[in-house]
Amino acid sequence: MADGDPLVIFTPSGKRGHVAQGTSVLDAARKLGVDLDSVCGGRGICSRCQITPSFGEFPKHGLNVAPDALSEWNAVEERYRQKRGLAEGRRLGCQARIQGDVVIDVPPESQVHKQVVRKRAEARTVTMNPPTRLFYVEVAQPDMHDPSGDLERLKQALREQWQVKDVTADFATLADLQAILRKGDWKVTVALHMAGENHSAEIIRLWPGFFEGPLYGLAVDLGSTTIAAHLCDLHSGEVVASSGVMNPQIRFGEDLMSRVSYCTMNKGGAAELTATVRTALNALFQDIAAEAGISPELIVEMVIVCNPVMHHLLLGIDPFELGQAPFALATADALNLCAGQLGLDSIAPAARLYVPPCIAGHVGADAAAVALSEAPHKSDDLVLVVDVGTNAEILLGNRERVLACSSPTGPAFEGAQISSGQRAAPGAIERVQIDPATKEPRFKVIGCELWSDEPGFAEAIAQTGVTGICGSGIIEMVAEMRLAGIVDASGLIGSAEQTGSARCILNGRTHEYLVWDETDRGGPRITVTNRDIREIQMAKAALYSGARLLMDKFGTDTVDRIVLAGAFGAHISPRHAMVLGMIPDCALERVSSAGNAAGTGARIALLNIDARREIEQVVRQIDKIETAIEPRFQEHFVNASAIPNAVEPFPILRQIVEFPEVAFNQRNDGDDRGGKRRRRRR
Amino acid sequence: MADGDPLVIFTPSGKRGHVAQGTSVLDAARKLGVDLDSVCGGRGICSRCQITPSFGEFPKHGLNVAPDALSEWNAVEERYRQKRGLAEGRRLGCQARIQGDVVIDVPPESQVHKQVVRKRAEARTVTMNPPTRLFYVEVAQPDMHDPSGDLERLKQALREQWQVKDVTADFATLADLQAILRKGDWKVTVALHMAGENHSAEIIRLWPGFFEGPLYGLAVDLGSTTIAAHLCDLHSGEVVASSGVMNPQIRFGEDLMSRVSYCTMNKGGAAELTATVRTALNALFQDIAAEAGISPELIVEMVIVCNPVMHHLLLGIDPFELGQAPFALATADALNLCAGQLGLDSIAPAARLYVPPCIAGHVGADAAAVALSEAPHKSDDLVLVVDVGTNAEILLGNRERVLACSSPTGPAFEGAQISSGQRAAPGAIERVQIDPATKEPRFKVIGCELWSDEPGFAEAIAQTGVTGICGSGIIEMVAEMRLAGIVDASGLIGSAEQTGSARCILNGRTHEYLVWDETDRGGPRITVTNRDIREIQMAKAALYSGARLLMDKFGTDTVDRIVLAGAFGAHISPRHAMVLGMIPDCALERVSSAGNAAGTGARIALLNIDARREIEQVVRQIDKIETAIEPRFQEHFVNASAIPNAVEPFPILRQIVEFPEVAFNQRNDGDDRGGKRRRRRR
Repeated sequence: MADGDPLVIFTPSGKRGHVAQGTSVLDAARKLGVDLDSVCGGRGICSRCQITPSFGEFPKHGLNVAPDALSEWNAVEERYRQKRGLAEGRRLGCQARIQGDVVIDVPPESQVHKQVVRKRAEARTVTMNPPTRLFYVEVAQPDMHDPSGDLERLKQALREQWQVKDVTADFATLADLQAILRKGDWKVTVALHMAGENHSAEIIRLWPGFFEGPLYGLAVDLGSTTIAAHLCDLHSGEVVASSGVMNPQIRFGEDLMSRVSYCTMNKGGAAELTATVRTALNALFQDIAAEAGISPELIVEMVIVCNPVMHHLLLGIDPFELGQAPFALATADALNLCAGQLGLDSIAPAARLYVPPCIAGHVGADAAAVALSEAPHKSDDLVLVVDVGTNAEILLGNRERVLACSSPTGPAFEGAQISSGQRAAPGAIERVQIDPATKEPRFKVIGCELWSDEPGFAEAIAQTGVTGICGSGIIEMVAEMRLAGIVDASGLIGSAEQTGSARCILNGRTHEYLVWDETDRGGPRITVTNRDIREIQMAKAALYSGARLLMDKFGTDTVDRIVLAGAFGAHISPRHAMVLGMIPDCALERVSSAGNAAGTGARIALLNIDARREIEQVVRQIDKIETAIEPRFQEHFVNASAIPNAVEPFPILRQIVEFPEVAFNQRNDGDDRGGKRRRRRR
Repeated sequence: MADGDPLVIFTPSGKRGHVAQGTSVLDAARKLGVDLDSVCGGRGICSRCQITPSFGEFPKHGLNVAPDALSEWNAVEERYRQKRGLAEGRRLGCQARIQGDVVIDVPPESQVHKQVVRKRAEARTVTMNPPTRLFYVEVAQPDMHDPSGDLERLKQALREQWQVKDVTADFATLADLQAILRKGDWKVTVALHMAGENHSAEIIRLWPGFFEGPLYGLAVDLGSTTIAAHLCDLHSGEVVASSGVMNPQIRFGEDLMSRVSYCTMNKGGAAELTATVRTALNALFQDIAAEAGISPELIVEMVIVCNPVMHHLLLGIDPFELGQAPFALATADALNLCAGQLGLDSIAPAARLYVPPCIAGHVGADAAAVALSEAPHKSDDLVLVVDVGTNAEILLGNRERVLACSSPTGPAFEGAQISSGQRAAPGAIERVQIDPATKEPRFKVIGCELWSDEPGFAEAIAQTGVTGICGSGIIEMVAEMRLAGIVDASGLIGSAEQTGSARCILNGRTHEYLVWDETDRGGPRITVTNRDIREIQMAKAALYSGARLLMDKFGTDTVDRIVLAGAFGAHISPRHAMVLGMIPDCALERVSSAGNAAGTGARIALLNIDARREIEQVVRQIDKIETAIEPRFQEHFVNASAIPNAVEPFPILRQIVEFPEVAFNQRNDGDDRGGKRRRRRR
């Protein structure tokens, strides 16, 4: 281009250059490498290339943009405006032609690689770069004198009109290809999946004529206990519906090792568990599509994250080897599959499935997704990320180095194996305070805004009643009992005489603490037994030991910040977690919750193909620590059962709270089940 | 290597070079690029690397090979000889080490790329280069300190021990991977399919420990009427079993256009035809495996050739577009699929399927396979290849240029639409002679060596009787009737007075010729009606017109040689075919039969990956002629109904036979159905 040619400056990218007079804005953008969307390839159909020209003086650029810097509003734009609407000041980039120096803004919705803002302030934004995109093409008609297949002419059109090479077609698309091409009068919109090896492109769906989309994708967090799915618009990146179900495999065992045992003990057991989870996923996908009011056939892309046992069961691999040392995965690398290969056929027939890599035999694709979401490898300070669930996945690191392990916390944190424990549901106690003087509890239950000692509480909970204690409730309960001197550092509940509270009642050889009693009205009697305390002690010791082991390996005694992840992690009170000694000492304001970070990581991988490459790269570099073979893990575990841990000075915690140094007696209640669990894990 | 290092000369390749003292023969072969097989990678297990050293004087090479040029017979060789046998003079290439100058012969069975001799003298030999081969590897065991998936360690072993990169695993292999690795104590044999794009390799089966094979492949000719399959040993290249069944789609229509109509007229019709043929293929594969006494799971590779309508029905594509101009194929390119994707699941779960490219809307992958087998593109002289069936596929060309078309001959050549016609089966008349003087016929039936006028014929056929006339029989019959003056050049049968034979009997407005009458014994009455003559005239005119059209396009009036292909083509008498005017004039000794050339082409593509690339290349270069839109085809067709053709001087034929120039009358019998058929085809 000669210097006499018009200068065009694109914002916000700042890309600039001279283009020949009469060049369309879309072509100018392509020439200068500016991210300007288009599905129809400049035919004035899709309106994805909307831009906003600016006129007047731009002293910064030394430019004066004349009113006629762009060609006049044309008939195509007018028709589009009348039919579909076009905001004031907007032009279609494929219609407006550059006639003089001009400054052109590309609004976010016209960018393919736009950024999607996440809800949490500390979270990284997601940059859109979905693997599956729409391309409108006009296909040459068949010619008897030069015979070729319809598919070959479609590929030719993609090559010539979109410069997409190495196109293949999913086998499932072949059956409808001819009818769709003719229905669209040789104009079709193609969904191309471009995440394969060597950036090859695969046709995974076709629509006659112009199809504006959007296409949808699913980010699925397949947990041992719950399955959560987010339906995302692959153009805007927004979550249009979310839904979750219980993992129906629970009937084969609450924790993963029980399910592995079920597979080992029962012929065809693994196949049964595989079928069960696949059926549940198909039903969930149909539900979520119905909730969003879209056809499930528009779901063309999916990312599933899960722990290694769920990973193998989903893939139809017997998880036997994961139940015993050396915990060998059948495959650890990321998987690019057709969802139909897994029988996930309630969505588009050729929908693609991506499963991030597993980190190790106990640290799965869900942990990889947490790493993608929380990005410890990009953190300047040393961050400890704990994904709290039936197994805790723990990541520790910064830009220099990231370590990972998993720790068998067991289901206590989810309210299981607790005498009055229950899952998080209306009626479950989730917040607790105990008066250190009177030892009287007050609490809140899920579904009610009032504390239990506030007026109107009884009426407010008339529907549900108080039904039990959920995972986050039991943590607060035990921590509050400790702070109130009902429990001593070794985890023993004192007697009524020792504590001065009639709520401490002898139960066998130990005491229990009465929280709520409605037996006179036919309701439940909710207590915390010393066995419950032990369960929580074991779970928190496992969690802490894992974190502590990583700190040893990293060569540090402190961390700069802590991120609690997992659906349950979102509800943990950092203060109570620290009182319990679940997590290392850390300034409370530097303990944050990431919510379902695994689900967020799945969503990032769904929306951005580069993020998939990133996580594959990061996982390769993570140092994997196997807790089961680390003597120090056992050591930490034994030492970490005290409340708070005997091994840790907890300087920050001790600044915040003062522990009553009660010691009811030195007798061990003989109920240390930690050894058993550790053995089970081996 | 220094010049002082031993010189090794390999025969028959002639490759030579110096290698370090102590190098194994296998390593030397690899270093020098000599084709020496090995599955176990030099561990003395597979014995595929057997070689024969030569000792003594080699004046041609200026070599004197000392007795100790190779290391001594070792314990591994001795064990192998005792257990499995090793021919005198043979050594294991991985055990014998080079100590001095030596000449080493690699026998054919130790070559991967050995040549397989075909039965016909004129046929090309097949060079072995099968896409799927066995590799024995020792896999690293899992390490908790450095966790990785079993699959990733298997890939690593293939990379390190066989230099095979970019390995992927078929999803179906994942389920058994862990158990097989452990059963084999981390030693496994892998079937790698290496025909994908970019020479990537895919794991399609695994065996614990060393598995010596062989693996098997199927070459399938999926015809409109019959399905023929050859089971081949992928190591030796030999056909170990052959089997065929009728195409059960026949119940939906004998010719292809009837089946296309069935799909159009009946909702779900195409799916029904697809299911029918897939079921038949699965049953055929099981039968052929049973016949060979092998597990169907050892069949890992398949090539299917077929015409475009069968191609689409096999793939599950409605053939609607192939029934009308412009006869557009859904896809024309070669297909690399997993057989399981087509429901062909009676063999190895991850078995691969290759379908050669279609040439045009009427010229299918079967014609491509004929081109591969008969190689007109490699012919020095001008060859006409005719694959005779319900549709005739016709190729004409030489090294310079190849043309192709198909011609709708209809099923008359297969005995259908002939009053006494039948398929080739015991009892069917297949050879005919008519005495020109007496007009008396003599014939042979399938399943009997005697002519009908020889003593003992009646007894010999007592079991079957004479049941009808098969395709090749009707051609001889009509040609003999013409030579005997029973039929005139226009195709009319004369009356008893005109011919002097009481066998010519009035039947409606025309005459019929009585061949066989057993009605007095409750048997059949076999005649040739004038309508039968007309059917054959139409069929032969279509065939001839196609060939003639290609000759026009090529700019020639003569061909150097003619190859008749197709199962039926194998039985056509060239002399009678020429009397009829089916084929252009050609010296009879230059008319040959290629048997089932499509099936042979399928077998070549099965055994040699390079042949697949060759046929894809050749098909792109073939000039496709669509007979339906060529006015000259219609012209030739009208002119070609005479016996022999009025349009051709047939100089060679006239040297051989003399036609009685009978002309019974000038009246047309009003039964010209050619126009009807041509309309149906359009």
